[in-house]
Amino acid sequence: MSKHNSNTKQIIVLGGGFAGLWAAKEFSKKDGYQITVIDRNNYHLFQPLLYQVASAGLEPEQISYPLRGTFRKMPNVKFRMAEITGLDLDNKTLHSDVGPIQYDGLIIALGSVTSYFGVPGASEFAFSLKNAEEAIDIRNHILSCFEYAQYEPDPKVREELLTFVIVGGGPTGVEYVGALSELVNNSLHRDFKGLHHEDVRIMLVEGEDGPLNGYPEKLRNYANKRLENLNVRGLYKQHVVQVEADKVTLKNGDEISTRTVLWTAGIRGNRVAENMGVPLGHANRIITTPTLQLEDHPEVFVAGDIALPMDGDKPVTGPTVAPNAIQQGALAAKNLQDHFEGKELKPFIYFDKGSLATIGRSSAVVHLGKFQFTGFFAWITWLVVHLLYLIGFRNRTIVFINWAFEYFLFERGVRLIMPKAKDTIPHGKADEYSTEGTEGTALNKRSVKEE
Amino acid sequence: MSKHNSNTKQIIVLGGGFAGLWAAKEFSKKDGYQITVIDRNNYHLFQPLLYQVASAGLEPEQISYPLRGTFRKMPNVKFRMAEITGLDLDNKTLHSDVGPIQYDGLIIALGSVTSYFGVPGASEFAFSLKNAEEAIDIRNHILSCFEYAQYEPDPKVREELLTFVIVGGGPTGVEYVGALSELVNNSLHRDFKGLHHEDVRIMLVEGEDGPLNGYPEKLRNYANKRLENLNVRGLYKQHVVQVEADKVTLKNGDEISTRTVLWTAGIRGNRVAENMGVPLGHANRIITTPTLQLEDHPEVFVAGDIALPMDGDKPVTGPTVAPNAIQQGALAAKNLQDHFEGKELKPFIYFDKGSLATIGRSSAVVHLGKFQFTGFFAWITWLVVHLLYLIGFRNRTIVFINWAFEYFLFERGVRLIMPKAKDTIPHGKADEYSTEGTEGTALNKRSVKEE
Repeated sequence: MSKHNSNTKQIIVLGGGFAGLWAAKEFSKKDGYQITVIDRNNYHLFQPLLYQVASAGLEPEQISYPLRGTFRKMPNVKFRMAEITGLDLDNKTLHSDVGPIQYDGLIIALGSVTSYFGVPGASEFAFSLKNAEEAIDIRNHILSCFEYAQYEPDPKVREELLTFVIVGGGPTGVEYVGALSELVNNSLHRDFKGLHHEDVRIMLVEGEDGPLNGYPEKLRNYANKRLENLNVRGLYKQHVVQVEADKVTLKNGDEISTRTVLWTAGIRGNRVAENMGVPLGHANRIITTPTLQLEDHPEVFVAGDIALPMDGDKPVTGPTVAPNAIQQGALAAKNLQDHFEGKELKPFIYFDKGSLATIGRSSAVVHLGKFQFTGFFAWITWLVVHLLYLIGFRNRTIVFINWAFEYFLFERGVRLIMPKAKDTIPHGKADEYSTEGTEGTALNKRSVKEE
Repeated sequence: MSKHNSNTKQIIVLGGGFAGLWAAKEFSKKDGYQITVIDRNNYHLFQPLLYQVASAGLEPEQISYPLRGTFRKMPNVKFRMAEITGLDLDNKTLHSDVGPIQYDGLIIALGSVTSYFGVPGASEFAFSLKNAEEAIDIRNHILSCFEYAQYEPDPKVREELLTFVIVGGGPTGVEYVGALSELVNNSLHRDFKGLHHEDVRIMLVEGEDGPLNGYPEKLRNYANKRLENLNVRGLYKQHVVQVEADKVTLKNGDEISTRTVLWTAGIRGNRVAENMGVPLGHANRIITTPTLQLEDHPEVFVAGDIALPMDGDKPVTGPTVAPNAIQQGALAAKNLQDHFEGKELKPFIYFDKGSLATIGRSSAVVHLGKFQFTGFFAWITWLVVHLLYLIGFRNRTIVFINWAFEYFLFERGVRLIMPKAKDTIPHGKADEYSTEGTEGTALNKRSVKEE
C-alpha cells in the first residue's frame, strides 16, 4: 500500500465501465485525493461494440483496454482487481474477496445485467449480451449450431438449430440482428456449402409496433425496411412468455422451434447492489438524490446504469447508454469533491447528445438534435463516433482494419469456436452435461439433439 | 450428406494442424477422392506463435484460421467438427461423439500433448502450452499473479507470485522466456507502479549445459548471452523432480518458491491414440512403416507429431516441428493415393529446411544449411518466415500491426484477463476451489494465499 498524508481523501470507484472511468478521470486533475478503481476485470470493455464480438466480426480483445494502461497517466489513480461482496455504510468499509477496503468517499458504478422480467425459462435458456464472456458464448454457440446442422439428419432438429430469436427491438437487438443476418448470408453461406440456407430464420420479437421504439418515425420506418431487406422476420406487438431448451412461446400462443434465444429486452442493476444495504428502486437500481448521492450517506455516490436518481417520485436520468454513464460518472466525481470542500452540489441533468444505430453494412440511423438522417452517411457517422470513443490507438487501428476487411470482402474474420470448454458437449448428450463452471463454450445452454 | 459415386474413395483426415492441412491440400488436386477433415476445433492453430499469446503479445484469434475458410477453395474437401473416441481398423470405422464414421482411407494427424515424464505434481500444477486454451490460461495466470502480488503483504507469498519457472530450454522455452521477460520489464513495469520489480524472477531449467541443445555452438552461445541480458536465470544441467502448488524441487535438492511452472520440456502423442488399437512406440507415438503406413493396415497413414515412422529399430523422422509435419502430411496423402492406384510408395525422408528461434526483440538465431547467423537480420528472417506461413490475409495484417506496435512502443496490447472463469478464485480461498470444468481462468491451478 502506498503511503499518503492524513489529509488525502481515499476515494473508491467501483467499476471500470464508462461511469467509473470518467469519474476517475475527473479526480485525476485534483490534488488531495487518492483514487482506487476496483473492478472484477482488469480491463474496460467498450460495450457498444460487444454485439460485433457476438457476430464474429471483432475479437473481444479489440474492444477491451487494460485499466492499468489508462491509469498510467493519472498518478493519483490506482487499480485493484477484486469482487465486491458487501458494504458497511456506517463504517465506510467495503467487503470484498480480497478483504475489507476502507474509503472516505465512494462512487458506485457497477453497471447492469440482463433483466428477464421473470419470464419462465429465460434466465436459464436465453443468452445475454452484457460482457465479453457472454459475447464469446453467443459467437461460439451460433457457429456450433451451423456445425451440427450441417450433418443433422432430423429436419425438426435442423430447424431448431438454424432458427435464431432475438428478443428486444432496441438498438442492441437491431444492431445484432443486422450483424447476424450478414454473417449468415455472407461468410457462413460460403462456409457451409451442403446446408440448405433457406432454412435459416432470424427473428426479432418486440412488444412495440416496430424496431427502435422512441426514435423518430422516419428513422423507425427506415430501420424496419432495412431489416426486411436483411430477411429478418419482425414479430412486433409480441411478447415472449416462455423459453425452453428447444422453443420459445409468444403471448399469442405461437411457438417457435429454436435453440438460440438472445435476450436484449431489459436490464437491471448489478446484483452486488442487493448486498449493500442501499435503497433499491425499479429494476434493482440504486435510488439517489438528484445530486447522485445516497440520501443518508452523502459521501456515497452512484453513477451509470446502476443509478436511479429521483426527484421525489420522478426519475431524473437519461437512458442507460454510454453518454448517460459518462455524464453521471463525471458529475458524481465533481459532486464528491464539492462535498468534501463544502461547496454546493449540482443536480444531474442529462444532456442528450443524440442517438445512432447501425443496421448492417452501409446503413444506419442517426438522430442528432434536429437532424435525422439514414443510409451511408449515417453509417459513416456511426463508424467515426465509435472509433473515437474506443480507447487505445492499437484497438482503433485493428478495429478499423477489421471493418475494412469485412466491408470489402463481405467476410467475418473471427469465425472461431474458441475457447472451447474442456467438457465439450457430445452431440446428443446435452442432458448429461452440466453447465456449471464452464466458460466460453458452444451449446452449453441448450440441448443439442434428443436421441 | 453429399452424394458420391461408388468409385469415389472416402478419405478421412484426423486433425487440422499442419500435417492434416497439407494432406488435405495434396488431395484437393486429385479426382476420385472425397476428403473429410475432422477436428475438435473449427480452426487451424498456428502453434509456432502460440507463445506470443501466452505472453500477451497476440490475440489467439489472430493465429487461428477457420478450417472451413481454407477448404472453400477445395471442392472435394469437407470439414466436420467432432471428437474421435475410437477406431475399428477391421471395419474401417471411426467412433466419435457424433457417431460412427466410415472411411476407405485414413490419415491420422492428431498431433501431440505435453509430456511431463511422470514427474510428480507436474501434470497437476504445471502449465502446458499446446493449444489456444492453454495459452490463454497462462496469460491470464501471469497477469493475475501481478495483480495479487501488488497488494500482497506477505513477502514469502509475493516471492512465489513473482517467480516464473520455465522448464525446457528448447525453442519454445527460449522464445517464451524472452517474450515473458520483455512483457515484465516493459509493459508490466509501467502497469504496476507500486510493485518491487526487482523481486520478479524468471528462470529457465534445462537438463543440458545451455539453451537450444542441438543448435550450432555459435548460436547457443548467442542465445545464452541474450537470455542473461534479459535477466533470465539459466539453471542448466538441472532437472525438475517435483512440482507443488507453491514450489518446484530440482534434482540437486534446491527448492524454488513459485506459483508458475510452464512445462515445455517434452511432448507425447495425443491420448486419443491409446483408444485406437494401433501400435504405440516411444512417447505414445504411433509406429508406422517408413512409408507412414500402419504395418497391418496399409490404408491407414499417420503424419505429424503423432507419427513415429520406424525403419526396423531406427526412427526415420525429423524433429516434431511444423516443417516435419507438413512434409509427412503431404507424403501420407500422396502415398495413400498411390496405394489406391497400385503404385509404389515412397519412404519418408525429412528435408531439413533449417531452424530458427527468436529471443526477445531484434534478436534471433537462424540455422539454414551452412548459414548460421544471429541478431537483427536473423530476427527479420524469423518475422518474415512466420508471417509467410501464417494463414489468412487478415491474420497477417493484424499480426504485423501488433508487432509494429510492440516494437515501437515497447508495449504488449493484450494485457487482459479474459475470459474470466465464472468462479473466480477468492483470494485466500484457493483450497476450496475446484479446477474442474473451468476454463481460461487465472490462478486456478495454484493456490493464491494461505491465511
